[in-house]
Amino acid sequence: MKYGARNTIKAKVKSVHKGDIMTLVKFDAISAPEMASVLTTESVEGMELKPGDSVQLVIKAIHVLPVKE
Amino acid sequence: MKYGARNTIKAKVKSVHKGDIMTLVKFDAISAPEMASVLTTESVEGMELKPGDSVQLVIKAIHVLPVKE
Amino acid sequence: MKYGARNTIKAKVKSVHKGDIMTLVKFDAISAPEMASVLTTESVEGMELKPGDSVQLVIKAIHVLPVKE
Amino acid sequence: MKYGARNTIKAKVKSVHKGDIMTLVKFDAISAPEMASVLTTESVEGMELKPGDSVQLVIKAIHVLPVKE
Amino acid sequence: MKYGARNTIKAKVKSVHKGDIMTLVKFDAISAPEMASVLTTESVEGMELKPGDSVQLVIKAIHVLPVKE
Amino acid sequence: MKYGARNTIKAKVKSVHKGDIMTLVKFDAISAPEMASVLTTESVEGMELKPGDSVQLVIKAIHVLPVKE
Repeated sequence: MKYGARNTIKAKVKSVHKGDIMTLVKFDAISAPEMASVLTTESVEGMELKPGDSVQLVIKAIHVLPVKE
Repeated sequence: MKYGARNTIKAKVKSVHKGDIMTLVKFDAISAPEMASVLTTESVEGMELKPGDSVQLVIKAIHVLPVKE
Repeated sequence: MKYGARNTIKAKVKSVHKGDIMTLVKFDAISAPEMASVLTTESVEGMELKPGDSVQLVIKAIHVLPVKE
Repeated sequence: MKYGARNTIKAKVKSVHKGDIMTLVKFDAISAPEMASVLTTESVEGMELKPGDSVQLVIKAIHVLPVKE
Repeated sequence: MKYGARNTIKAKVKSVHKGDIMTLVKFDAISAPEMASVLTTESVEGMELKPGDSVQLVIKAIHVLPVKE
Repeated sequence: MKYGARNTIKAKVKSVHKGDIMTLVKFDAISAPEMASVLTTESVEGMELKPGDSVQLVIKAIHVLPVKE
């Protein structure tokens, strides 16, 4: 299986909270992942982002796609 | 700082690959994060997702927002 | 009407399942569409994607925007 | 393989246009797919969307994830 | 024209910066828009978001779809 | 605080409509914002987008991230 995405995090399902239309699922990642972000070069320059910087990576839950093999 | 997003991963910048319009940034997460996903209840039922299941969480790099405090 | 998006699929509404906040709508596409994807060049090379390859195009329902003219 | 997404379209790669950071890939869908969209109930009511309506489904190329099995 | 989206901002194009694959376009909004966000109820409660609060609405440029009528 | 995103709109919360899993929040922007969009160069050329053009910027509510400082 090869995905056209830079981030694939191995995880275990911790809880499933079902609603009528949408469901919220929580996971524990199995290890600290390598992550990748694509942003505009303007944003990178505005942030003065460089190797060694500490950041928070913010990801809305709606953008996380679980796949079960 | 409070974000309207379920996933915030502490990370360090590893590399910055600048292009004309878009830039690809790589990070190392500092620890194994808790993650959350919102998907349709239909998808959860189609996958038979339940606590304990092993999954891959796939996230396109474009959906990862770095924030520097 | 001109959209700043590469994918526009003609479709007919098949069902509407309303929830309090979010609603799930199903459609039948009228014909087999041409589709486009933008991904990192790294991902394309990791997948060794080339003309003629068979793939699945996975799209979360939340990223599909219906427009009624 | 089970995906936490309502839309999976079988397709063949038609062309690959590589850039430095991002790449644009074109596909031909193999058949007319069933599609699903999640939107706010307010939007559905504002559009008066109902079974039988003709619509355009607009999807930015960045939201299309190719998977090669 | 009816869009399945809660946010439609009238704007004028200010600049177009073309790259090989991706292009960055800047706009001036014509007036202060009403905006809507959908997030998990958990996030809203974690932020203690209530009427009158001042916030920043952060939107990646990739999620903004221009339409020309 | 520096965000890896081109759009940050100052706004005040107007209403909060809570559901079980997802919540819809409405805001009033404090002033007319400058906005940015990234799209494929092909789309820009297909739309013949140029400075001075009037457009609608369409953004699904799910892509709007509120941050409270």
